[in-house]
Amino acid sequence: MLKTHRHYEGTLFRCAHISEALGCLEARFSVYVPDAPRARTALPYPKDCEGFPMLLYLSGLTCSDENVITKANAQDHCSAEGLIFVAPDTSPRGANLPGEGERFDFGLAAGYYVDATEEPWSQHWRMREYVECELPELVHAHFPTLGEEAVSIMGHSMGGMGALACALRRPNAYQSVSALAPIAHPTAVPSGSSPDVRHALMKYLGDDEAAWHLYDPTQLAQGYRKDKKGPAPPILVDVGADDEFLASGVLKPWDFIEACRQSDLTVDFQMRAGFDHSYFYVSTAIGDHVAFHAKHLDS
Amino acid sequence: MLKTHRHYEGTLFRCAHISEALGCLEARFSVYVPDAPRARTALPYPKDCEGFPMLLYLSGLTCSDENVITKANAQDHCSAEGLIFVAPDTSPRGANLPGEGERFDFGLAAGYYVDATEEPWSQHWRMREYVECELPELVHAHFPTLGEEAVSIMGHSMGGMGALACALRRPNAYQSVSALAPIAHPTAVPSGSSPDVRHALMKYLGDDEAAWHLYDPTQLAQGYRKDKKGPAPPILVDVGADDEFLASGVLKPWDFIEACRQSDLTVDFQMRAGFDHSYFYVSTAIGDHVAFHAKHLDS
Repeated sequence: MLKTHRHYEGTLFRCAHISEALGCLEARFSVYVPDAPRARTALPYPKDCEGFPMLLYLSGLTCSDENVITKANAQDHCSAEGLIFVAPDTSPRGANLPGEGERFDFGLAAGYYVDATEEPWSQHWRMREYVECELPELVHAHFPTLGEEAVSIMGHSMGGMGALACALRRPNAYQSVSALAPIAHPTAVPSGSSPDVRHALMKYLGDDEAAWHLYDPTQLAQGYRKDKKGPAPPILVDVGADDEFLASGVLKPWDFIEACRQSDLTVDFQMRAGFDHSYFYVSTAIGDHVAFHAKHLDS
Repeated sequence: MLKTHRHYEGTLFRCAHISEALGCLEARFSVYVPDAPRARTALPYPKDCEGFPMLLYLSGLTCSDENVITKANAQDHCSAEGLIFVAPDTSPRGANLPGEGERFDFGLAAGYYVDATEEPWSQHWRMREYVECELPELVHAHFPTLGEEAVSIMGHSMGGMGALACALRRPNAYQSVSALAPIAHPTAVPSGSSPDVRHALMKYLGDDEAAWHLYDPTQLAQGYRKDKKGPAPPILVDVGADDEFLASGVLKPWDFIEACRQSDLTVDFQMRAGFDHSYFYVSTAIGDHVAFHAKHLDS
């Protein structure tokens, strides 16, 4: 534990641990634990069960866990809804690989929630394994969660890409998934865009694009087979109408929605007039997302 | 105008101008304007009056206007209450005076809302004049306020000191005043403390302590004469019980409250168990403060 803060009716824990998934580097994350569940409409859990459902939040490029916990105001809503809020970092730190800090869209704070297969990144850049397995297990072990039956996932931008991909790869692992301004079709972002998503995927995963599809929400939605995987969790996608990355073709939410439609996956979608890509947008929208997850974690 | 963002039901304007009070340096500030008044219990203004009361927020050491607008979540509450929220910087920037950046508690981001009288600071460090006169006039001229009859003031830490001092010097200028974890008795903070408030006051104001009393909330409360100045505006003071600067003797809220009691000034006081000095505390408490000001700006 690095530090704790009282925040709203709960406690924020800033934590560090040595991560196996990330090749034995120190990894930081934050966990917010409400004092008591409030305003929940139904509790399927035994009344003497002491614990809270978990909402995992994946952040965007250039962020650490600090941005969301200081700027998004999720804790106010999670306190009110009785959810544990978990925010990991966005890449390994401290590996000192050559070139890791040269670009905002690759390396440090730019893990894209993939398991890199290319050297030298494959030694440490294993953010998929970290956010799907190691981190939730650690949180379940040390905080009063209700266990892996009560976990939902969301994210912003690169983290929205990660959250949607996690939920479509492992539909039984999450009760619901939502994304704020996600990079929804990363393999279709033109090379040379800012961020250059294809450049990063190439460096992490090699030049066989088939391997990239495991991390592309639109590709995963296109190939989703309910008869094999069962139903997907409820999906909520949100974007600001004046988002600069929507305008530049980096987000492509329509591609994802169309793919969901073709695969008969249900998506709630909201576009907010006037909002951009910043945390001013995130803090405005996040209350609806926490309420969405709370509803599905209750039912 | 540097940039605008939609935020909650309103718009955040980040602005820059050349300040006369600060000796013709560029000064930055933020203004949040709600779309429409909501949830107000009474409107003493004509129904066709288009405008909002103004709440001025003074930030603490090391901050600019950015900390409060990204971390405090005041905009959510100001949107709900229909208040314009104004956040200035905490010192002049760009004067390049010798030693201005050497300490966190003096010079840059450490203006203490005083008008410096000592060279070379007196050329630029005139934050009292800036926050009392120049900035409000600028905001009234360019944003839909209700004018100088509907202004309240608050602040955090060094900004709490500034807000309380402004309101006790000019009781008719504000409808209400509140302070989060204020440096409430700055002249009594022992030399060598961190922050070393007396060191800063000495450098700005010289070694005649009588001049310091104009900026000391406790001294101002002790000397408050209702028969001369009229009633003071309603005062709300708030502090976290685990505030590290409360523990180290920098805040001294009890001195201020006792001085108010002796001068028959009414103070509401709240201490919050478990909370520290950070913006996690500010964001938790600020809703009560915005509601306090909205009530007094309505009546």
